[in-house]
This record gives sequence, C-alpha cells and structure tokens, in this order.
Amino acid sequence: MSVPVLTVATVPDYIASQPHLAGLVDVSTLDVVEVGDGNLNLVFIVTDATGRSLTLKQSLPYVRMVGESWPLSQDRILAEDRGYRAAVQFSPGSIPEYFGLDEPARTIAMQDLSAWTVWRRALNDGRVHDGVATELGRYVARIGFGTSAFGLDSAALKIAQDNAANPELCKITEDLIFTHPFTDHPDNAWDAALTPDVLSLREGGLVDEAAELKYIFMTRAEALIHGDLHTGSVFVPDESSEETARVFDIEFAFYGPVAFDVGSLFGNILLAEARAAVLERPAEFRLWLAGLRGEVWTAFETELRALWPNRVDPAFTDQFLDRWLAQTFSDAVGFGGLKAIRRIVGLAKASDIQTLDEAPRLEAAQAVLRTARSWVEGRRGFTGTDDLRLS
Amino acid sequence: MSVPVLTVATVPDYIASQPHLAGLVDVSTLDVVEVGDGNLNLVFIVTDATGRSLTLKQSLPYVRMVGESWPLSQDRILAEDRGYRAAVQFSPGSIPEYFGLDEPARTIAMQDLSAWTVWRRALNDGRVHDGVATELGRYVARIGFGTSAFGLDSAALKIAQDNAANPELCKITEDLIFTHPFTDHPDNAWDAALTPDVLSLREGGLVDEAAELKYIFMTRAEALIHGDLHTGSVFVPDESSEETARVFDIEFAFYGPVAFDVGSLFGNILLAEARAAVLERPAEFRLWLAGLRGEVWTAFETELRALWPNRVDPAFTDQFLDRWLAQTFSDAVGFGGLKAIRRIVGLAKASDIQTLDEAPRLEAAQAVLRTARSWVEGRRGFTGTDDLRLS
Repeated sequence: MSVPVLTVATVPDYIASQPHLAGLVDVSTLDVVEVGDGNLNLVFIVTDATGRSLTLKQSLPYVRMVGESWPLSQDRILAEDRGYRAAVQFSPGSIPEYFGLDEPARTIAMQDLSAWTVWRRALNDGRVHDGVATELGRYVARIGFGTSAFGLDSAALKIAQDNAANPELCKITEDLIFTHPFTDHPDNAWDAALTPDVLSLREGGLVDEAAELKYIFMTRAEALIHGDLHTGSVFVPDESSEETARVFDIEFAFYGPVAFDVGSLFGNILLAEARAAVLERPAEFRLWLAGLRGEVWTAFETELRALWPNRVDPAFTDQFLDRWLAQTFSDAVGFGGLKAIRRIVGLAKASDIQTLDEAPRLEAAQAVLRTARSWVEGRRGFTGTDDLRLS
Repeated sequence: MSVPVLTVATVPDYIASQPHLAGLVDVSTLDVVEVGDGNLNLVFIVTDATGRSLTLKQSLPYVRMVGESWPLSQDRILAEDRGYRAAVQFSPGSIPEYFGLDEPARTIAMQDLSAWTVWRRALNDGRVHDGVATELGRYVARIGFGTSAFGLDSAALKIAQDNAANPELCKITEDLIFTHPFTDHPDNAWDAALTPDVLSLREGGLVDEAAELKYIFMTRAEALIHGDLHTGSVFVPDESSEETARVFDIEFAFYGPVAFDVGSLFGNILLAEARAAVLERPAEFRLWLAGLRGEVWTAFETELRALWPNRVDPAFTDQFLDRWLAQTFSDAVGFGGLKAIRRIVGLAKASDIQTLDEAPRLEAAQAVLRTARSWVEGRRGFTGTDDLRLS
C-alpha cells in the first residue's frame, strides 16, 4: 500500500480534513515546518497564529536515512499507534498528549514538544534532568504490567500478542543489534583505529550470547514493549519545569521481552557515561550519570511491585515475581550491552560518541565496547546496577 | 459460529458433498460408527463395502465430557488442521495420512487407524513397541525445527506465530495443568486416601515453579507445538508391523515452548512406569519403560542436530544450540512433572492409574506425585534422562 506523501504545502488542508484533529489548531493560520531528524519518517510541527500547535508524523515507504533503495512498509505507523494507545491507557503522563491515528494516510498526531529537548542532546551537553530515569523506569513497568499476563487475562493477552505484529521493524533490530555487529556486513562502519576492538568482538563467546539474546527477542512475547527506548526517544523539559520526561518514537513496538526496553536505557546511559568520561565532565555530573541505571531499575521494580497486587492471575506468586525480576535484570544487562555495541559498530551511530574529536572518540568507543562486552558475557552474575559502571 | 452436528445417519451424504474427500471411499456403501472417546469431539469411522475407510472428526461447540454447560469454540479444529499441515510438511510419516479441513463444517478427515492401538492402552497392557519413543522424539524435533526461528525466516516466523492462536485450548492447559492442581478448585478430584499428598503439593516452592512454567507456556512462542502429546495421542500398530507410531489429536496446537511436547512424553511415561511398578510387571518391561524417556530425548536431540546445518539464520551458533537443548531439557522435565501431577489431581485422569485397584492405585499415585515433584523442583540440576527414574 502506498499513500500520498505529505509536504509542508499540503499539511494544512490535510489537517483540516481530519475530524480527529478538529479544533486543536486554527487551520486557516497554520505555519508548518518539517523537522524529522530520525531515520524513517516525516515529522511536521504545525503552529497556528495563536500559538497552538501539534506534531504530525507520517511513515514513509522507505528508510529515510538510506533512501528509496530500502523500502519499508508504512504499516509501522500502526505499530506506533498501538504503542501510544497502550501508553495512554497505562502511563498517560509518560508520552506527549496523543491525538490518534489516521490509518489511510499513515499519520499520527500528538502534542508538539519541540520546545523540549531530546534527552540524548541534554546528556551530551552535560545537563542534569532529575526524575527522567525514574519516569522511564515507571513507564516500562506500567506498560510491561498492563499489556502482559500480569495485567491481561489469558484470552486478552493472546489477542493482543497476535495483533501487534511489526515484522519489518523487528527484522531491523534482529539484524542491526544482534547480528551485523558480529559479522562482515556492508552496513557496518567504524573508525579505522577501532578495527582490532571490533574484530575481537567476533572472538570468544560473545556471538553465542548475542544468538541467545536474539532468540529471546524473537520468541518471548511478554508485553507490548517500546522496542527502541534509547535516550533519543525521550523528550526532557526546560530545567525549570516540574515535568520530567515524555517518551516518543514508538514505531518499533511489538510483543517482546520487557527486558529489552530496560536494557536499551542501560546501554544508552553507558554511551553518555563514556562521553562524559573522555570530556572530563565534572565528577558530580558523572556520578549522577552512573547512578541513572540504578534509578531506572529501582523505579521499574518499585512500580511493578506496587502494581503486583492487581495482577489478574493469582497463580503468579510473589516468589515468581522475585525470580521474574532477577531474570529480567539479567536479560536487560545483556540487551543493554548489545544496544551499546551496535551504536559503535553498526549502521546507526549515536551522537554521544560521534560528535567527539578523534582521540576521545576512540577512547570512548573502546570503553563502551569493553564495558558492553562485560555486560553481555557477565549478565547472569550481576546482582544490581552498581556492577555496571563504565570500565 | 455454530454448524450442524454430524450424526451416523448424516455422515454419508456429508462425505459425498466434500470434493476433497472424493474417491477415498465409495459413498454409496458406507458403514459409519462413532468412536469418539476423547473429551471434545465427534469421531466417525467410515468404511465402504470394499473395506476402504477414513476417519472424520468434528469439533463440538462444548466440552464433550462435561456437556453443553462448558461451551468451547469449534475453531479448535482450525488449530488441529494447522498442526496436521505442519506435520504433513515436516514429518509426514508421524501422522495418519491427512485428507484436510472442511472449515464450514468444522471437520477434518484422515486415514482410519482404528485397527491400531492407542499407545497408552498398549503400555497399560504391558506390551512393548520398539521405535515409538524414537519416532515421537523425531516428530517433536522436526516440527520444532521447521516451524521455529531455526526453519523459518524472521518474517515467516512472525506470520506463523500470529496466525496460530488457540486461546480456549491454551486456557484449558493453563488452568488444568498449571493452576488447578495447586488450588482449591471444584474440578479437582482424587482418592480420599491421597489427600495429604495432594495438599502437600501446595506447600513449599512447587507453586512458584508451576507459576514460572505457566509463564513460559504463555509467553514463549517458539514453534507450533502439539500441545497435548501424551501417550493417548499416539497410535501404535500391531506388534508384527514395521510401522512405528502415528501422532493424532493435535487440537491443542499453538505457538509455544518446544519443551512442552517433550515434557508431555516424559510425564506420561512416568504414569506408565508407576502402573508397571505396582502391577509388578516383568523387570524387562519395566526397564524398557524406564528407558523410553532417554529414547525420546536422544531421538529429539539427534534429529535437531541433524537438521541444524539447514537452519535459516547462521547467527544461531552451534554453541547456542547446545544451550538451547540444555534449557529445553530442563524445561521439559518441569513440564513433564506438572503433566503427571494433573493426571493424579486434576479434572482429566489417566487410565494408567485409574484402572488399578485401590491399594496399588494409591501406591502408584503417590509415586507419581513424589517423582513428579522432584522433577519440577529439581529440573535445573538434572543432566539427562537417567536422573528421572520413578522414585
């Protein structure tokens, strides 16, 4: 299926034609800018003369950063809509206000948060935002509880599992995170000086661990996870705000392992730590960064334990929850390591490292690979986030 | 959806109306008998004057053993059709010749094996059938390989996972195997003398282990498993035959853990062992019985390793396979224990134990519960089937 691609010129008429967007902005005085800096989509910020605004996202039929040579179904916007709707239901304060899907045009609309900052950028700049990690840990717990066998009865869970397919975006993750970094693949790229470090990833047991985590990713249909919950998928407000954070870019959503979202946060915090280390950021900032994984995990566990008495099936005992949390932690550490490695070796890089000068970039990349490998290989032995410091 | 229920009188005209059954039997000379001794369906054996025959199965809109008070969707025949078609594709010699589905009437048709014996009955009678356990282990491996991430590429796997829903029959398993035996449930039933043994199942960590295995059953979408692979779901031929076994009753099929099918065999072999012990069957027979789990596992592992070079994704390494097999063994032991327990405590009993006189019945039931519990609780420490003897 292909649908007309929106442009800055056609967006006002398009919005005027959409009943679910009626009244949100004055369609006769719209200013439209296209701000999509992601890889896969068009993103329009639409503002009227009174200052009211919204964000409109349209999935394109190809991977934007590569071009039309990499076709990709626009159905992924349906997955993103599922992700937003789950958040509306279970953790509404964690996302931009959501205005819904227009399935024929493959668009979704939401609150304009362009005055906010992408968290990765704030971290890159050395800025502290308290409460963000806690909000994210809670978000993962709430969705993980609400959409899993804990929050849904058996029949509802099966319907949800079977209606959350997102095959193309899952395949991207399977390839780019679990496979390509450990093989000769043309999409891989890294600084030449890093070659020995990268090639050494293919030696020893790391590929076997990656295989095991890939299999878990492909077969463990626990909950409607975000699927791409890195620090670039989170908005943070002005430091003076009482708000904490908003999660966005949920187009990778599918029924998968809850640990994958937790791990994505762990791994991306590692990138921020490596940057801060080579830039010799103040010790206070670095200590704050190093504590973020603990904040994520504590919030996740606390929220899940708070929701636990409401589980639909009492067959899941308290002792079971303890074990499920331990397993989820261990898997998250593994996923987090792989998420960090792919940002050094694979197709899609992260600005945390890429914007550094050559010498610190190499140093930071080496530290990430070293630490990430220790996570993946040692994940069954770690007992808490204190074991996960940059090494 | 409800469809006309077939009767002995209406079956001939029905078969004559079905193009996919044309020519299999002479519809003008049919003799029809209804032989369904299962819990959920009508089963007709249809024979013509020349001796040609077939089996016709129709799902009923309720659980037959309970009656119309327990409604059950007839869609389960679609799940059974999926199970048979997977077997036709990957292990055709393991099932009766399959003639296909008539979706509107909710019937499937297959080779008439009424001259064969249900394996549970042969085991109850103390009869040896060599090769059956090997055939079953191979069957589980072939379907487990062919329908999983080993045999299907990422996209095909997702389509298969999402189109194999069998919610009502999964719920029966979730309740009857993982939950009811460990709770006060009106469907439970056991010999009064067994009460202390049954109540002790609720003490200690067994319920936590059952919770963990239930969660795996509900979330690990590995392959299109049989879902009810006990010794009553297997036909064995006359001892003089060169044939080995045919699997049937695949209506519980869904995307679940491969270990569940392996474990079902383990647990049901345990019931046969317990019967043979209290009946003081010849040592040779009992030794043969005790070796069947090893035969199942060896065949399963051997077949999977033979298929392994054909896996579609080389990211799954040899070392990964070793670990996958170890995990599958451990999970199978746990599932097997629970499958055995439910046959003593739960709604659906097994003739292995139920047809015994009172004193040996109690002794056998106690041995099953004792051994099964040791399996579930000790499953992570066992290294091979020799650890699983009746105790």
